[in-house]
Amino acid sequence: MSTEEVAKKVVELCRKQAWKEAINTLYADDIVSVEAFNPHGGPTEMRGIDAVRGKTDWWINSMEVHSQKVGDPFVAHDRFVVQFDIDVTEKESKKRFQMSEVGVYTVRNGKIVREEFLPKAGSMS
Amino acid sequence: MSTEEVAKKVVELCRKQAWKEAINTLYADDIVSVEAFNPHGGPTEMRGIDAVRGKTDWWINSMEVHSQKVGDPFVAHDRFVVQFDIDVTEKESKKRFQMSEVGVYTVRNGKIVREEFLPKAGSMS
Repeated sequence: MSTEEVAKKVVELCRKQAWKEAINTLYADDIVSVEAFNPHGGPTEMRGIDAVRGKTDWWINSMEVHSQKVGDPFVAHDRFVVQFDIDVTEKESKKRFQMSEVGVYTVRNGKIVREEFLPKAGSMS
Repeated sequence: MSTEEVAKKVVELCRKQAWKEAINTLYADDIVSVEAFNPHGGPTEMRGIDAVRGKTDWWINSMEVHSQKVGDPFVAHDRFVVQFDIDVTEKESKKRFQMSEVGVYTVRNGKIVREEFLPKAGSMS
């Protein structure tokens, strides 16, 4: 698949909250996933598809999603960018928050090999 | 300056269309600038601050800007992303077009060392 085809498929699956299908079909085994922060402290970079699956399981189990908006992708060469706007409650703390972030994805041989998540400046206050 | 400080300054200067001030104050001498397409054909990647100045001069001289919207920056680690929505007429062809793109910027030692521009998929049709 081309970068644009991968980008459109990611957006389609994220809009359905089909996170696991996205990982299983579009992610390389040696994916590198970088968050802005680590809510548990420690490293912000994860390596390998199993680590990403673990992070996704944590997200699905921890958050009640009230709404989410997934933007149309921006694409050039081996890179694409998608904006996510979410409104969630963390189940344990019952804290509700809204977050706007972009994912910057890098594609090689039709698979996502790197993803970086960047929150809107000031939106994590 | 931190990545967030550089990001906010770029946004502030782009909103004023102060492109040259942005380059002079925030860009590294060995900046790498990557476009999705080259309107003249040829390479999409430019190296060096003088090449970027040349591209900026071409843009300023070629385009009549009807409106532009510069979004708030998304920031993490050494990277930030800004969305640009523009409505311009190319003076020579008198062709008016609207374009939505993001810039993905990489910062090192308080200067922008790489910028990549990604148009919204399908928006260049």
